[in-house]
Amino acid sequence: MNKYTERRSRLRGLLKGEKGIAIFIGNVESAAQYRDNGYKWRQDSNWLYFFGIDEPRFAAIMDLESGIDTVYADDYDIDDIIWTGPMPTVASLAQSAGAGRSGKYSEFSSDVAAAIAAGRPVHWLPVSRWYNAVLLSSLLGVAPDKVFNMGKKGCPLASEPLVKAVIQMRLVKDADEIAMLDKAGDLGYAMHTAARKGIRLGRIEQEIVGAMEGVTIAGGWGVSFATILTQHGEIFHCHSHECPIEPGRLLLIDAGAESNDHYASDHTRTYPTSGRFTPRQRDIYQTVYECNELAFSMTRPGVSYLDCHLAVARHMLDNLSQLGLVSGDLDEMTSDGIAGLFMPHGLGHNMGLDVHDMEDLGEDLVGYDPGQKRSPQLGLGSLRMARKLVPGNVITDEPGIYFIPALINLWKQEGTDKGRVNYSKLEQYFDFGGIRLEDDVLVTQDGARRLGSNRLPVSPDEVEEAMAKDK
Amino acid sequence: MNKYTERRSRLRGLLKGEKGIAIFIGNVESAAQYRDNGYKWRQDSNWLYFFGIDEPRFAAIMDLESGIDTVYADDYDIDDIIWTGPMPTVASLAQSAGAGRSGKYSEFSSDVAAAIAAGRPVHWLPVSRWYNAVLLSSLLGVAPDKVFNMGKKGCPLASEPLVKAVIQMRLVKDADEIAMLDKAGDLGYAMHTAARKGIRLGRIEQEIVGAMEGVTIAGGWGVSFATILTQHGEIFHCHSHECPIEPGRLLLIDAGAESNDHYASDHTRTYPTSGRFTPRQRDIYQTVYECNELAFSMTRPGVSYLDCHLAVARHMLDNLSQLGLVSGDLDEMTSDGIAGLFMPHGLGHNMGLDVHDMEDLGEDLVGYDPGQKRSPQLGLGSLRMARKLVPGNVITDEPGIYFIPALINLWKQEGTDKGRVNYSKLEQYFDFGGIRLEDDVLVTQDGARRLGSNRLPVSPDEVEEAMAKDK
Repeated sequence: MNKYTERRSRLRGLLKGEKGIAIFIGNVESAAQYRDNGYKWRQDSNWLYFFGIDEPRFAAIMDLESGIDTVYADDYDIDDIIWTGPMPTVASLAQSAGAGRSGKYSEFSSDVAAAIAAGRPVHWLPVSRWYNAVLLSSLLGVAPDKVFNMGKKGCPLASEPLVKAVIQMRLVKDADEIAMLDKAGDLGYAMHTAARKGIRLGRIEQEIVGAMEGVTIAGGWGVSFATILTQHGEIFHCHSHECPIEPGRLLLIDAGAESNDHYASDHTRTYPTSGRFTPRQRDIYQTVYECNELAFSMTRPGVSYLDCHLAVARHMLDNLSQLGLVSGDLDEMTSDGIAGLFMPHGLGHNMGLDVHDMEDLGEDLVGYDPGQKRSPQLGLGSLRMARKLVPGNVITDEPGIYFIPALINLWKQEGTDKGRVNYSKLEQYFDFGGIRLEDDVLVTQDGARRLGSNRLPVSPDEVEEAMAKDK
Repeated sequence: MNKYTERRSRLRGLLKGEKGIAIFIGNVESAAQYRDNGYKWRQDSNWLYFFGIDEPRFAAIMDLESGIDTVYADDYDIDDIIWTGPMPTVASLAQSAGAGRSGKYSEFSSDVAAAIAAGRPVHWLPVSRWYNAVLLSSLLGVAPDKVFNMGKKGCPLASEPLVKAVIQMRLVKDADEIAMLDKAGDLGYAMHTAARKGIRLGRIEQEIVGAMEGVTIAGGWGVSFATILTQHGEIFHCHSHECPIEPGRLLLIDAGAESNDHYASDHTRTYPTSGRFTPRQRDIYQTVYECNELAFSMTRPGVSYLDCHLAVARHMLDNLSQLGLVSGDLDEMTSDGIAGLFMPHGLGHNMGLDVHDMEDLGEDLVGYDPGQKRSPQLGLGSLRMARKLVPGNVITDEPGIYFIPALINLWKQEGTDKGRVNYSKLEQYFDFGGIRLEDDVLVTQDGARRLGSNRLPVSPDEVEEAMAKDK
């Protein structure tokens, strides 16, 4: 049985008792500058997982009652083939996906309409792109923005049994997927190594981005998300790369590669631009490094990633209190969420075909076990993966410490810290920036291992040594 | 007066007598893998031209009667600023665009609705992205696919006076734009040079793509269109890069860079993979090279680009008849479109903010003078720029010769060539591939010049010399 047939058969098993049809909509080309000048082609991840056909303008119906799968697309005609060269037929592509039937693209809409007219339930997943939303909207008779993922809560109208079954399957990676994630990890290692070797005082940040992204394009699909490469690590979504590398700063690089088979990597390293950490930088760096190691050492089946996050928060506060930046009872500070001032994001997220895996199916459904509630606290509230770990989970381990003037001023003004923060000392860090260290981790039968063959230099000494060798 | 105010003031002049409002919709982020994982941010080109604000989720109304321009977007709040760092206000960005008023994003929709309710005409441009289509559709009460560009004929519902006025302006580049196009041309030179230096037997094509695209990311926004790099030059839209470089083949590289200020370059070169042309390759290459030079030598104000295309077709047929591939009266073969068998595309297209400039406003409106009709012939029928040239036009000069087995067999079967083609000889070229040579050209006051400081090696001797030096 081919792997797509096998996956759909497992999906059918999880949906046992459900009536009607489940529909899947592949992507079409997405315009960058104008309609026929598309961004690099990227197929929908759920489509890739269940059908694998990496071509635009496909859709499929799984009939949950008859057991028949139909793949819909249009064959190329002779005029197309003059431009594209010989192309496989839709029927042969459907066969490669293990689907027994194929039809024209327009028949997808008419077959869904016929099912609706016959009163059969239609199961569907929230969509990520506006074309898919327009198509789904026209099939279901609801507004396009109502079939979109709405953020943490997902898409209230989408079919909960289907969404939950897909999440259950994609959360646990099979051997095939793990091999692809290892490959993506190796590409991530190569891209980050190229970046580190490119760090030179006076160079414009964008030049380093080009060197590293060239590596991802040479060896894979491209970047798995917009590269963050900045001397302002405290600005989370800083995608501007115009500044020259300045001495004595910290350069944070959060970047990932997507392999040719569309699995992601996601690593972060933070480098002293001059090649050596200042004592103040080393103190904070050492703490982030310890947090990263602590989370990894705790990662094993049966442990919840929420507990890993909390252990990291506690360790961070312990070290920061030794530096005199906070003071108070460690357990109380942890449960009051004081670490959120320094790390206002979660410890990590699921990773797979998407770098935030399945984010569009609804963050809470993906990252939280039934009954687990998302915290309203800053930091912990942004934790995307809180579940009890099981073998086959792939997660990121990415603690960070940032000094964000706007946030510190806000806490000071509102008294959020309940007297635990030493603001006069903290204000001396307003020019510090931020540090994050991120690895990609597979939960194994009895523990965890990092993905890819090599780990990027990470301890303060390893980083300084590697940068000295680069010169 | 700032350049955006000046452009909008000229647009107002061209729309003199029109009532109501003209609306402009900037882009929003476009999902790659899922909603919050966008492709690299790219603003809408018409928006960039008339407002310049390079941020997502902006819209604007030009009131054609009151003369007031309003820019709509939402200010960042403190929660956003924690993640993004300090951001300029919408009011200050509106001011940078020379617009007197600003409002919230939601007010754009309500202001358009108010204008419609008051019976005022709403002028709008066809859109390229589905989000923009959904927004425009909700404002105008028409289906999303009806506000999209429909191809050569454009979008029949869009406002013809506005579309024509924008085309009239953007067809003629000002000094500012020419400087940016020269910069993009330099980046294109650098990327193609990196590619040529990367050609080595046995290397996978994708590695060369990575090396060249890394250069475009290091120095600009990225590629201006999906890179074509293939040993199957006869397949026009070949975006697969999996093959190793083989000896004795021709490697066609059609690739462009987009500068940080979003102007395009677009060059094609074709290299002998072994560093030297075979005699058969050199014959065809020399013909394409002569056609490229011929078109450039004819390019000047007052000449129509249609005539340049026809002169190239005639010269190509002349040389091909000397090679014994065709025979017959040259003028008759030219007017019968026999060249289309070898070059089934046009000589060139407009270029600017888009690599096919303004393609979404309607190819015929952009590329054809009033009264000029598009030919139904293969090749000439794909000519995107036929107009009589004026100073400030920026066009590509890209003749090519391809041997496309499927097309040749089709002509043979249907007798399209009326006896002019020597098929038994032509079939010996089925494994040849294709050659294209493309430069970017500015029409000046008294002639033309190529954009960028340097021209990529192009004559057969120059190419062989450059490749010998690369080693």
